[in-house]
Amino acid sequence: MRIDLNCDLGEAFGNYSFGGDNQIIPLITSANIACGFHAGDENVMYDTIKLVKDNGVGIGAHPGLPDLKGFGRRNMDITPKEIYNLVVYQLGALDGFCKVHQTRINHVKPHGALYNMGAKDKNIAHAIAQAVYDFDSSLILVGLSNTLLITEAESLGLRTASEVFADRRYEDNGQLVSRKEADAVITNTEEALDQVLKMVIENKVVSKNGKEIDLKADTICVHGDGAHALEFVSQIREKLTKEGIDIQSL
Amino acid sequence: MRIDLNCDLGEAFGNYSFGGDNQIIPLITSANIACGFHAGDENVMYDTIKLVKDNGVGIGAHPGLPDLKGFGRRNMDITPKEIYNLVVYQLGALDGFCKVHQTRINHVKPHGALYNMGAKDKNIAHAIAQAVYDFDSSLILVGLSNTLLITEAESLGLRTASEVFADRRYEDNGQLVSRKEADAVITNTEEALDQVLKMVIENKVVSKNGKEIDLKADTICVHGDGAHALEFVSQIREKLTKEGIDIQSL
Amino acid sequence: MRIDLNCDLGEAFGNYSFGGDNQIIPLITSANIACGFHAGDENVMYDTIKLVKDNGVGIGAHPGLPDLKGFGRRNMDITPKEIYNLVVYQLGALDGFCKVHQTRINHVKPHGALYNMGAKDKNIAHAIAQAVYDFDSSLILVGLSNTLLITEAESLGLRTASEVFADRRYEDNGQLVSRKEADAVITNTEEALDQVLKMVIENKVVSKNGKEIDLKADTICVHGDGAHALEFVSQIREKLTKEGIDIQSL
Amino acid sequence: MRIDLNCDLGEAFGNYSFGGDNQIIPLITSANIACGFHAGDENVMYDTIKLVKDNGVGIGAHPGLPDLKGFGRRNMDITPKEIYNLVVYQLGALDGFCKVHQTRINHVKPHGALYNMGAKDKNIAHAIAQAVYDFDSSLILVGLSNTLLITEAESLGLRTASEVFADRRYEDNGQLVSRKEADAVITNTEEALDQVLKMVIENKVVSKNGKEIDLKADTICVHGDGAHALEFVSQIREKLTKEGIDIQSL
Repeated sequence: MRIDLNCDLGEAFGNYSFGGDNQIIPLITSANIACGFHAGDENVMYDTIKLVKDNGVGIGAHPGLPDLKGFGRRNMDITPKEIYNLVVYQLGALDGFCKVHQTRINHVKPHGALYNMGAKDKNIAHAIAQAVYDFDSSLILVGLSNTLLITEAESLGLRTASEVFADRRYEDNGQLVSRKEADAVITNTEEALDQVLKMVIENKVVSKNGKEIDLKADTICVHGDGAHALEFVSQIREKLTKEGIDIQSL
Repeated sequence: MRIDLNCDLGEAFGNYSFGGDNQIIPLITSANIACGFHAGDENVMYDTIKLVKDNGVGIGAHPGLPDLKGFGRRNMDITPKEIYNLVVYQLGALDGFCKVHQTRINHVKPHGALYNMGAKDKNIAHAIAQAVYDFDSSLILVGLSNTLLITEAESLGLRTASEVFADRRYEDNGQLVSRKEADAVITNTEEALDQVLKMVIENKVVSKNGKEIDLKADTICVHGDGAHALEFVSQIREKLTKEGIDIQSL
Repeated sequence: MRIDLNCDLGEAFGNYSFGGDNQIIPLITSANIACGFHAGDENVMYDTIKLVKDNGVGIGAHPGLPDLKGFGRRNMDITPKEIYNLVVYQLGALDGFCKVHQTRINHVKPHGALYNMGAKDKNIAHAIAQAVYDFDSSLILVGLSNTLLITEAESLGLRTASEVFADRRYEDNGQLVSRKEADAVITNTEEALDQVLKMVIENKVVSKNGKEIDLKADTICVHGDGAHALEFVSQIREKLTKEGIDIQSL
Repeated sequence: MRIDLNCDLGEAFGNYSFGGDNQIIPLITSANIACGFHAGDENVMYDTIKLVKDNGVGIGAHPGLPDLKGFGRRNMDITPKEIYNLVVYQLGALDGFCKVHQTRINHVKPHGALYNMGAKDKNIAHAIAQAVYDFDSSLILVGLSNTLLITEAESLGLRTASEVFADRRYEDNGQLVSRKEADAVITNTEEALDQVLKMVIENKVVSKNGKEIDLKADTICVHGDGAHALEFVSQIREKLTKEGIDIQSL
C-alpha cells in the first residue's frame, strides 16, 4: 500500500515571499509548482525547480487562472479554448526550467479556481486534460477524487492521481464541503488523522452527514505554511508509516 | 548564395490586433513569435504557431522584457540572472505550443530593448546565449551582425545568424544609427535595395560616413505592417531572386 | 425632449491602438473612458481626457474588471468589497487626469462584465453605486434601463441615466437578449432607427416576442469602430433631430 | 526644532502580505502609501488609508514605476511624459481612497527607482514635480536632500521636504553611497543615532570620507519590517525627544 503527499510550492512573486518551501520539502513526495499566472515568476520557478529536484521530490506543474491579484482563486467565465491555451503555456514555461535543470515534469495539478471549475464542468475538465495530453501524454493529471477532472483525463488515456484532503469534510456526493460553510474544515487533529487512514487503507470517507462514501486516494494534499501545518504533516507521515503504508511519489 | 527573411509575428494581445501576419507570412522564411512578456498571449501564440507551421516558415522565439505597456522597447536595469530566467520562461512557453502543434522552435531572436542591450553588454549577451544553450543547444541565436550577442553565443558553441537591416543606416563601427537620429532610416527604396544586395553578396555595407564595413548577412529583418512594408518586402524578394540568391529559412 | 449619445473611448493600451476616437467624438455627447484595468493606460487617459474636453463632450469614467487579457468581458467571482475598491481606484485615477486638464467627471458607466453583473446582482449593483456615491455623490451613474444598477443607485440618492441600445433586441422582461443568441442584434438599419425613436419618444420598446415594454431612455449606447458604425450614428442623429429631439450631454 | 518620521506602508499585494504596518504606525508621523504600480492594490489601499487616518499620521502618495515584478526598484528608460502620466494616475487613484475615507493626501514621495532617477535627472525631476503641481499645487514633494527633485519642485513653487537617512552613509557631494558598495549602510546603532542628531540639529552630515556636508533635514526615512527596525525607530524617537525636538508630521 502506498500514498503520495503533495504540496503547493513556488508561490512567491517578485519581492514577495510566500510559504515555507524549505521547511515542507523534506516531508512531501510531490510538489505542485506555480507557473506565473496566479503566483510564481521566472526567478522563483528557477529556484523552486532546483530545490525540488535536489530533494528528490516529484515535480508537478500547477497552472492557474490569469489572476495574480486574486491568487487564481476567483472563478472566471473563461472558454475551454482559453483554458486549453493557458494550461499549455504554463506547462511549457515550467518545462523550460526543467530543461535547464536537466529534469522533467511528472504530474500536473490545476490550481485553485481552475481545479474547482475542472472538477465540476465537463468542458473545462476536458480542455485541461486535452492540453496536458497534447503537451505530453505521459504526464499524470492530479484531480479531486470522484470528479470530472479524473474521468475526462482517463477517457483521453491519461494517467491520473485521485486527490484527497486530510482536513476537509466531504459531502454525501463525494465533493468537498465548500469553504464558505462553517464545518468545511476538520480542526481536530485526531479526527483528521483517522480520516486519512480510512481514505488510504479502505478507500472510503465518512461524509459530514455520516454517510460512508467510496473514494480513491492516490495523493494527499498538505500545506506548508506555518508551524502547525508542518507539525500536522509530520503526524500524518508518522501515522501512515506506522500502518506500513509507503509514502512515495506518484 | 542564400539569405533568410525574418519578421516579428504574433504581436497581438487579448482584444488588440497588431500587424498583418496573414499578409506577410507568404513573403518570409523565418518568424519571430512574441511569447507574452512584451506582446502576444497564450491564445495568440496558439494561432501563430499554427499559421507559421502551415506556411512552412521557420519558427523562432522572440522573448522580450516584462513590459507590455512599453512593448518591450524600454531598457530596464535588470540583472543577467533575471534575463537568463525570462528567456528560459518564454522559450518554454513557446515550445509548449510547438509541442501541441507537433513542430519545433528553430531559432531565437531577442526583442526590442533586450536585443539592443544584448548587442552592447557582454554580461547580458552571455545570459541570453546561456539561457538558449541550456534550454536547447541546437537552437540558432539571431543577433545584430558584428555584436556581442553573436560572439557570446559562438563562444558557447551555439549556432548563430547575423542579422542585417535593409532600410537602416550603419555607423562606422558597424552598429545601427540610433533611431533618435534624423538619418537613421533609408527612405529611398532603390538605395535600400542596393544596400541589401551589397550586404548579401559582398558582406559589406557603406556607413553613413561613406566608409565600407564588413558584416555578415545571414538574415534580413523585414516588417509586415502596412501596404508599403509588404510592397518593400516583395521588391527585396524580386531583387534577390533576380541575382540568383536563394531565399530560405535559417 | 432630449437624449444623450454615449460611446466607449480611450480603449487603446501601450503600443496597441483601438477604435476611432477622433472620428466618433464629433457625433456623441458623452464619452465613457477606460481607466486602465480592462483597457486604457495612463498615457491614453491623458490624451483621451484632452480630446473629450476639447470637443465639449461629457466625461465619464468607465471602470472595468482587472482583466486586460479578456478586455473586462469575462465575469469574475469577485466580492462586493473588491468591486467597491476597484471602482474607487479607477474613478480616482481618471479624476487625476481631469484635475491636470482642469475639468471634471460627469458620469460613471461600468464596463462589460461589471456592467452586466451589476445589472443582475443586487450586492454588486449596490457596491458599484456606493463606490460612486462615496467618491462623489454628484456623479451620474449610467446603467441598463430597468435593472438593479439603476434602482440601487437611486436608493442611495445618486442621479442615474437609463441606457438603451439602438441595435440590440430586448427580452419580455426588459433585459437585453444575450449576444450568445442568434437574434441578439438588429441588423436592419431602419428597424434599429425605429426602435430608437420609439424608445426616446414613447419610452417603450417591442420585445423579441412582440410584447411592448416600458423603459426609460436617457442615453443611447453607440459604437465608433468602423465606417458602418459611424454612418449608423449619423443616421440616428439625423432621425432624432428631424423629430425635434435635442441631442445633449447628461 | 521639529522633524518628521516617514515610512513606506501599504506594500502588500493580493494574497501577499508585506511589512508590519500595524507595528510601525504608532511610531511614525508620515506614511508613504504604495499606489498599485510597484506594490499595493485597491484593497490594500482602502485598508491602509483607513489605518493611517485612524492613527492621525500624515498621508503620502508613493508612486512607483510600472514594475510589480521588480518592486519598482529597477531603473527604466522611460520618457518624462510617461513619468508625468504615471504620477498623475497614481496620485488620483490614492486620492480616490482619501475621498471615500473623507481625508486628504498631504505629501508625495516617489518610490525606489523613480526616486533615484528623479534625484539625478533634471527632466525626470521636473516631470514628477510638474505632475504633483498640476494635480494639486498644495501638496508637499518629498525628495532626497540636496537633489534635483527638491530644486525642480521649488522652482515650480511646490512646497518640499528634504529627506535624510539615519543609517545610510553619504558621499562628499551629499548623495547617498550606493547600496552596491560595502559601506553603504551604517550598522552601528550609536553611530546612526549620532548621525540623525547632527542632521536634525546642525543640518550637517559627515561623509564617508570625513568631510562635513550641509544638508536640510525635514523628514527621516525609517523602515517597519522586522523587530530590529522597530527597535531602531523607537531609539531614534527617544533620542530626538530627549533633545527637545518635536516629532511631527510635515
